[in-house]
Amino acid sequence: MNKPEGAPGPFERLQALLADDLTRVNDLIAARMASEHAPRIPEVTAHLVQAGGKRLRPLLTLAAARMMGYEGEDHIRLAATVEFIHTATLLHDDVVDESTQRRGRPTANLLWDNPSSVLVGDYLFARSFQLMVETGQLRVLSILSNAAAVIAEGEVLQLSAAQNTKTGEDVYQTVIRGKTAALFAAATEVGGVIAAAQEAEIAALRDYGDALGISFQIVDDLLDYGGVSGLMGKNTGDDFRERKMSLPVIRAFAAADAEERAFWVRVIDKGDQRDGDFDAARAMMDRHGALASTRDTALARAADAKAALGGLPDHPLRDLLSEIADFVV
Amino acid sequence: MNKPEGAPGPFERLQALLADDLTRVNDLIAARMASEHAPRIPEVTAHLVQAGGKRLRPLLTLAAARMMGYEGEDHIRLAATVEFIHTATLLHDDVVDESTQRRGRPTANLLWDNPSSVLVGDYLFARSFQLMVETGQLRVLSILSNAAAVIAEGEVLQLSAAQNTKTGEDVYQTVIRGKTAALFAAATEVGGVIAAAQEAEIAALRDYGDALGISFQIVDDLLDYGGVSGLMGKNTGDDFRERKMSLPVIRAFAAADAEERAFWVRVIDKGDQRDGDFDAARAMMDRHGALASTRDTALARAADAKAALGGLPDHPLRDLLSEIADFVV
Repeated sequence: MNKPEGAPGPFERLQALLADDLTRVNDLIAARMASEHAPRIPEVTAHLVQAGGKRLRPLLTLAAARMMGYEGEDHIRLAATVEFIHTATLLHDDVVDESTQRRGRPTANLLWDNPSSVLVGDYLFARSFQLMVETGQLRVLSILSNAAAVIAEGEVLQLSAAQNTKTGEDVYQTVIRGKTAALFAAATEVGGVIAAAQEAEIAALRDYGDALGISFQIVDDLLDYGGVSGLMGKNTGDDFRERKMSLPVIRAFAAADAEERAFWVRVIDKGDQRDGDFDAARAMMDRHGALASTRDTALARAADAKAALGGLPDHPLRDLLSEIADFVV
Repeated sequence: MNKPEGAPGPFERLQALLADDLTRVNDLIAARMASEHAPRIPEVTAHLVQAGGKRLRPLLTLAAARMMGYEGEDHIRLAATVEFIHTATLLHDDVVDESTQRRGRPTANLLWDNPSSVLVGDYLFARSFQLMVETGQLRVLSILSNAAAVIAEGEVLQLSAAQNTKTGEDVYQTVIRGKTAALFAAATEVGGVIAAAQEAEIAALRDYGDALGISFQIVDDLLDYGGVSGLMGKNTGDDFRERKMSLPVIRAFAAADAEERAFWVRVIDKGDQRDGDFDAARAMMDRHGALASTRDTALARAADAKAALGGLPDHPLRDLLSEIADFVV
C-alpha cells in the first residue's frame, strides 16, 4: 500500500475525496481518546492512532455511506468506532505476539508495558462501543458487536492454529476472517445501513469489505515472506519467527516431500529455528509455487471484491473502491 | 462473604429466591461462552465462570428487575452480560497483576498463558456486548457502555496510582469506582430501566449499587491486610506485594511520621520489600488506626447503600438487598 512515484494512487485520491469527513473523524478520535483521570490513555493511544495509521477502515465506512447518499452525522461516529476497534486489537495483538515493532516504530508494550497495552485496548474498545451506541441504530450495533466476537474468536483460534503444521486452509480462512475481514466487512456494511441502502446493496457492500479484507490479509502474509517486491513497513520474517501458519506455509507444507515436512515440523511445531532456515523456507515455497499460488488467491479475492461492487450504483467512490481492490494486491 | 454456620445468610436467601432466574442465567452463560471454532474459549471461561463465582453482579440485576415488577426476558440477558463483563475484567486483571491465584485456584494465565487470557477476555467482552444489544434497549446500552469505559479508565489509572505513595483518596475513589462500583451500579440500574421504573427509583437502584460496590471493594482492601477476621479465599498480602495504594495504606501513609514515611516509600515506591515488612506495615496501620478507620468508611458506604433503598417500594428483595449491604461489611 505504499505510494508509487508520480500520480497519486487510489488510496490518496480516496483520502482527498473524503478529506473533510476524515478531518472530522480524526477530531472525534482525538476527543474520545482523551481521559479525564488517566493521562496514560491518550499517550498510548496517540502513539498508535496518530502515527502512521492509514485510516483504511474508517475510509471504507465513510466511502460506503457517502456512495449511498448518506448526509447525516453517524458515518463520522462509525468511522471513529472502527478505528478504535482496530487500534484496540493492535494493542492486544502486540501483547499476544510479544511484538517490539509496529508500523516501523516501537510498540506500545515496549514503550510502556503489557498492562498498559491490555488496559488501554480495553478502554478503546469501550469507547468504540459508546460511540456506536450514540448512533442509536440497533442494526449497526448488532453488526459491530457480531464483528467484535468474530475478531476475538479468530484471534483465539490463531493461538492454537499457530505452531501447528496440521492447520489447514479452512482454519486459516476462519482466522483471517476474524483477524481482518470481519472488521472490513462491518465497516462497509454499516455505511450502507445508516444510508438506508437497499438490502442487496448492503449485502454487496458487506461482500466487498469481506473479500477486500481477505485479500489484504493474504497480501500481508506474502509480504512477510518477501512475496511482494518493493513493499516496506513490515518486518519480513516476523510470521516465520512467530511460527504462524500463514497461507504460503500451509501450501508449501501441503506440497512438501518427507524431508521438507520434517523441516516444517522442526521450525513450526517444535520452534527449533536456526540460521538460514528462513531462506530455506522461502526456497521451498518457490520450489512448490506456494508464493505464486498465494498471490493468485489474493488476486481472486480482489476480483471478488470488485465483482461485489457491480451491485452498487455508479459513483466516483465506487470506482475508487474498485481501484483500491486492485491496489491492495 | 463466607457462609456463616447455621442459618443461611442473605446472599444464600437471595440465590434461593431467584433460583429459577439464576438457572436460566447460568444456562445462557454456558450457551454463549461456547465457540464453534475455538475450543480454548469455553475451556478458559469455564475455569472462571463455572468455578466459585458467586454471581453477585447478575443477582443484583435480577433482584433489581424483579423488585420493580419486571416480567420479561431481558433481565436474564443483562445478568449474563454483567457476569461476562466481570469475567473479562478478571481475565485481564490477572495478566496485568501477573496473578497466579484467583478464588483459591490457579489463574487462567497460569494454566494456559497470557495471550489466552487477553483474547478470551476480549471474546467475553464482545459476547457481553452482543447480549445487551439483543435487548434492543438503547438506554441500557448507554449505561453499560459507559460503565465499560469507567471500568477500563479506572484500571489504567490504577497502573499509575499503584507503586506511588503520592496517591491520595481522590484517586483511590476513582480507581475503585472503575474497579468495582461502576459495574455494580450499572447492574442494578439496568434492572430498574428494563422494568420501566420511575426515574427516582432508577437513581435509587444506581446509588445502591454504587455504594455497595465501593463498600465491597474497601472490604476487599481490608481483607488483604487481615483487617477482617475469619474470612478466607483471598491471599492476604497480595496488594502489599503488588504495591497497591489501597485505602489502609493511603491512611497509614497520611498519618506516618518521617521514619514510617521512609518505610512506605521503600516498600511501595521503590518496591524494596524484605522479610517482616508486611507485618511491619500492619503494625503501622494498627498504630494509626488505619484499618479501623477504613472499616468505618466501608460501614458508612454500606449505610449509604441501605439509605438509597429507602426510595424503593416495599419488597422482600429490597429487604434482602439491605441485609446484603450489612453482610458485605
